[in-house]
Amino acid sequence: MDGYYAFMLIATAFVLMMTVPALALFYGGMSRSKSVLNMIMMSFVAVALVGIAYVAIGWSMGWSGDGTFFADPFALFFLDGVTTDSYIGVMFQMTFAIITAALISGAVADRMKFSAWVVFVPVWSILVYFPLAHMVFSCTPDSLICGRIGAQDYAGGTAVHINAGVAALVLALVLGKRVGWPKDKMRPHNLTLTMLGAGMLWLGWYGFNVGSIVFADGVYSDEQFFAETGRTFANTTLATMAAILGWLIIERILHGKATSLGAASGIVAGLVAITPAAGAVDIEGAIAIGAIAGAVCAWAVGLKFKFGLDDSLDVVGVHLVGGIVGTVLIGVFSTAEGAGGVDGLLYGGGLGSLGDQALGALVAILYSGILTTVIALAIKFTMGLRIDEDDEVGGIDLAQHGESAYDLHTASFAGAPSTGVLAKSTAPPVAPGTGSSSDKEGASA
Amino acid sequence: MDGYYAFMLIATAFVLMMTVPALALFYGGMSRSKSVLNMIMMSFVAVALVGIAYVAIGWSMGWSGDGTFFADPFALFFLDGVTTDSYIGVMFQMTFAIITAALISGAVADRMKFSAWVVFVPVWSILVYFPLAHMVFSCTPDSLICGRIGAQDYAGGTAVHINAGVAALVLALVLGKRVGWPKDKMRPHNLTLTMLGAGMLWLGWYGFNVGSIVFADGVYSDEQFFAETGRTFANTTLATMAAILGWLIIERILHGKATSLGAASGIVAGLVAITPAAGAVDIEGAIAIGAIAGAVCAWAVGLKFKFGLDDSLDVVGVHLVGGIVGTVLIGVFSTAEGAGGVDGLLYGGGLGSLGDQALGALVAILYSGILTTVIALAIKFTMGLRIDEDDEVGGIDLAQHGESAYDLHTASFAGAPSTGVLAKSTAPPVAPGTGSSSDKEGASA
Amino acid sequence: MDGYYAFMLIATAFVLMMTVPALALFYGGMSRSKSVLNMIMMSFVAVALVGIAYVAIGWSMGWSGDGTFFADPFALFFLDGVTTDSYIGVMFQMTFAIITAALISGAVADRMKFSAWVVFVPVWSILVYFPLAHMVFSCTPDSLICGRIGAQDYAGGTAVHINAGVAALVLALVLGKRVGWPKDKMRPHNLTLTMLGAGMLWLGWYGFNVGSIVFADGVYSDEQFFAETGRTFANTTLATMAAILGWLIIERILHGKATSLGAASGIVAGLVAITPAAGAVDIEGAIAIGAIAGAVCAWAVGLKFKFGLDDSLDVVGVHLVGGIVGTVLIGVFSTAEGAGGVDGLLYGGGLGSLGDQALGALVAILYSGILTTVIALAIKFTMGLRIDEDDEVGGIDLAQHGESAYDLHTASFAGAPSTGVLAKSTAPPVAPGTGSSSDKEGASA
Repeated sequence: MDGYYAFMLIATAFVLMMTVPALALFYGGMSRSKSVLNMIMMSFVAVALVGIAYVAIGWSMGWSGDGTFFADPFALFFLDGVTTDSYIGVMFQMTFAIITAALISGAVADRMKFSAWVVFVPVWSILVYFPLAHMVFSCTPDSLICGRIGAQDYAGGTAVHINAGVAALVLALVLGKRVGWPKDKMRPHNLTLTMLGAGMLWLGWYGFNVGSIVFADGVYSDEQFFAETGRTFANTTLATMAAILGWLIIERILHGKATSLGAASGIVAGLVAITPAAGAVDIEGAIAIGAIAGAVCAWAVGLKFKFGLDDSLDVVGVHLVGGIVGTVLIGVFSTAEGAGGVDGLLYGGGLGSLGDQALGALVAILYSGILTTVIALAIKFTMGLRIDEDDEVGGIDLAQHGESAYDLHTASFAGAPSTGVLAKSTAPPVAPGTGSSSDKEGASA
Repeated sequence: MDGYYAFMLIATAFVLMMTVPALALFYGGMSRSKSVLNMIMMSFVAVALVGIAYVAIGWSMGWSGDGTFFADPFALFFLDGVTTDSYIGVMFQMTFAIITAALISGAVADRMKFSAWVVFVPVWSILVYFPLAHMVFSCTPDSLICGRIGAQDYAGGTAVHINAGVAALVLALVLGKRVGWPKDKMRPHNLTLTMLGAGMLWLGWYGFNVGSIVFADGVYSDEQFFAETGRTFANTTLATMAAILGWLIIERILHGKATSLGAASGIVAGLVAITPAAGAVDIEGAIAIGAIAGAVCAWAVGLKFKFGLDDSLDVVGVHLVGGIVGTVLIGVFSTAEGAGGVDGLLYGGGLGSLGDQALGALVAILYSGILTTVIALAIKFTMGLRIDEDDEVGGIDLAQHGESAYDLHTASFAGAPSTGVLAKSTAPPVAPGTGSSSDKEGASA
Repeated sequence: MDGYYAFMLIATAFVLMMTVPALALFYGGMSRSKSVLNMIMMSFVAVALVGIAYVAIGWSMGWSGDGTFFADPFALFFLDGVTTDSYIGVMFQMTFAIITAALISGAVADRMKFSAWVVFVPVWSILVYFPLAHMVFSCTPDSLICGRIGAQDYAGGTAVHINAGVAALVLALVLGKRVGWPKDKMRPHNLTLTMLGAGMLWLGWYGFNVGSIVFADGVYSDEQFFAETGRTFANTTLATMAAILGWLIIERILHGKATSLGAASGIVAGLVAITPAAGAVDIEGAIAIGAIAGAVCAWAVGLKFKFGLDDSLDVVGVHLVGGIVGTVLIGVFSTAEGAGGVDGLLYGGGLGSLGDQALGALVAILYSGILTTVIALAIKFTMGLRIDEDDEVGGIDLAQHGESAYDLHTASFAGAPSTGVLAKSTAPPVAPGTGSSSDKEGASA
């Protein structure tokens, strides 16, 4: 078996893992303890919904032929006519569709109806993501962003991160702010989960960026493979390292201390920004893009308080801003030795590439922004987007899923009262009646 | 190095990871906080015990020659005579033996002596798993399930899941119910751990199913490899997605809400059911098997309350039921293009395959059921299986391991009393004497 | 693409994952809840600092030429002159530099200034790790440990584990004991995190050990690859299993109970000890080395109480002791069929290899010990190493990062007081004013 294929099997599994469990835990840790399960569930159910939709029509919309926005949705319906030796390519692309939808969930923490999410995700994927994947990754001659504009996007700065960031912005606006925000501080309930999620995202991102080689560039000789995957691996790694430092330095300047949440956020900001540029730049360019993305995003996540936008877990500040930074800076830092074969502004390439990149980003912003607005409003005025205020205050986990994430006091609850000191010392006090709430767990508990 | 070999190195590491830490955390999160460490420890120690037993005689019992039930246990004692270029095959099979034993632990939460588990695991592996692996995976002409009956089992519906499920059923019956069950609700103490574990299991399962290619079917050309691994990867993925939806829909109908525990359980149910069928069906068949497994298991896990069986973490409802669903439905959904080359009932293949599959499942049930009963009773009437009732009520972690999982209140305990508001606000109150219980941690703490 | 290259892409990602998030969580779980974020942050920031330093001058110091201690630091400054097809080799070695520095953090829990760590890590990497990597892994004719002494070290018993263990010892001594240690028991605050970290470390270690093949031994034929990677994979696996059992047995003898922390520590001890020996021994040798390392380390971690050394999370007892055990026992258990081609004492090879191994270990101890002492004292007497006692008692997370890891009581804090029983039952009581501490989270929260 060719080594490329072996790598793609793992890379595809890695990108799926980025959503479940990595992103689910990254976001879950940042949520409050009364809404962590709903946050996690938005990722888990997105996997199932987008996955099935992707094999039904997503692959066909992307890869069955040419088109400005998308190809024939039914030409390869449920992979009809696709032979199994092409399946791993389908699966790889499917995992990109999944994580893009799941990324949006960070903006709607604590307050979106689960049923509305279950409707939003496949509709949004079909109307927004599947077309943008065609425009960017399929890269047929007529495809808008890659074919016509000629913007470079190695692994998804436009179709994935700008797209998800814009959709998050729109959905957060249509939903409105959480009860009490921003007066009540809503701090992360479990930063160890967030750090775990960030680390797993980083691991999985090697599948995302390094695995994008063939879909971006066709088939290589061994030497070219070594050269290309070595470049994207090193760029992904070094940009992320630089972004950690960039974020922590800005955070220290603005707020006085370098936080663990800043380090985790810096990792994601760096990975987002290098995603479109991984093949285009050299390691100095990667370090520069990472450092800039970390610094800019560290500053940008504070803007939501100024604008009154309750982008709960900073999807806009990290994915939209980071995605724009990476996409546009290709026009500055790309080198002719890179995947696109184009010198950026800094290497004497002039403003041409910079303009293409900016235009590509703009098209992604407009397409995603307009379509997401239509979808969000349509759901809002039919089934409704938001849970009751009482349920939001009481906790969306209990209201929408009948569960709560933690029961850390079973020693005293279930234990014998006579154990005395031990029971008291290892558990918080608990009121009678705890049992009744757990009745709602049902048989599956 | 051939790509197949590169893939098998990772696949084997993935399947080991499925037990430690994935399954350990999946089960640990569902346990109560006073017994999570014991649950985790059952997986960790199973890895060590089964692993050593496997290289001692497990490989030899499976692969040193022919036999209805097993081959010569000492022909390849401690891999004597096996060259190191075959080691990865041994290691891959070893990881299957490990997780099968570890799966059983979910049925005996909170109440099994750790010493009894330490005895049970290697004895059960030698008498039950190693023979079943020979009967199914080694597939010599005389081997009962594969060779004689001719049942298909791509990656372990019979030898792994039905086997573990039956053993869990037997062991739970011999052990008896937990104190207070089912009157006391014993809900998961940390669902974030369970969601993490489910996600990691899914990742590792690509090693499990896709890695089973050569051991099932010999050596391929590049094109055949692409076709076969693409098929098993896609089937594993899509069946799991369908199972999530199947479980959540049934749960919503039966209990009114879709839960995160349901999503996690649906993932495992789908993975279990597609395990035997991954190579035999097309993607429509995989989606059907997954959806059916998710729905049936969601219903089946409620039966334990009717039958008074304290299968604490639903090993029977998910692995036995899911394993039967997947194994038997091969007879319905398999296609002649698949690994077995046989059309199932739905594709005009008649009842022959369905009968073979049902008979294979039945043999696994009977073999595992009878042998496990003998082993469980032998341990029960010699060293004893169950801890004291006081220890069970007080918590098995403290009783058997001298530890408790969490100490989340150190800010007030170890901190200065003078910090006042902060200390109170970030920590539950704690009685004097907490320190004394931690003395039991010993030097390794 | 050659399969070797596919494997190295994953192996490198795995070793990076060993630090972030695996080691961070392994150590974080063992910390107290008021210092877990600082512990995690020491790993996260080490990744960024060492990574950038490595591509700047680390690779050049190791691989740009010959030298007893190191090569020209600026010959390949920022990989200038290194082609991208060699990048994955650079990245792989970089991940070793990263984890070695991060390992040290376990000895300084709760009390080291974050700014001092930010200075210590790159300085120590440049002066201590980069030279030792040259002496051991680069293996030029003049390189001290590999070239001149001829000691075998497959994947880093000397350069990584002995080195980190010695540095941990020195830094813990220069820093001094924690306030209250050893009178106050400072037990792990979240053992589920530690078990998770141990499992992820084990997974990643296959990248570490099996991935070290080419850097140790050049290019192979397919058959040699199969043989060599099969050997190192099996040895890594079996030594770890034996070490779990070795640790738990000694723990049970010394303290009466087998603990989960013991199982997790046994995993790391076994992995550490087999690291230098993975290619040199057969599986019986691997099992022996693992069992000995597990037993010896289980005993050694108790010594810190005798010597009054606050090696907070047992870096010395596991990495220094385990590293010495593995490095020296190569002289006993190595076989001529192994990577080094030398028979150890047990196979009739005499004392020659044993002497070389002991001398190699001694050089690593002396080099790391002397240089680390100089660096630690230099920082201590300039910017200072240690936080204020008040901050240490109040918690380093709040003092240095303005954060606390957990906020598990939002149900009652943010929820409606009127929900009554539920609010009380799912959350510990909380004093007014909690909100004020979270103000310190800043905009990034």
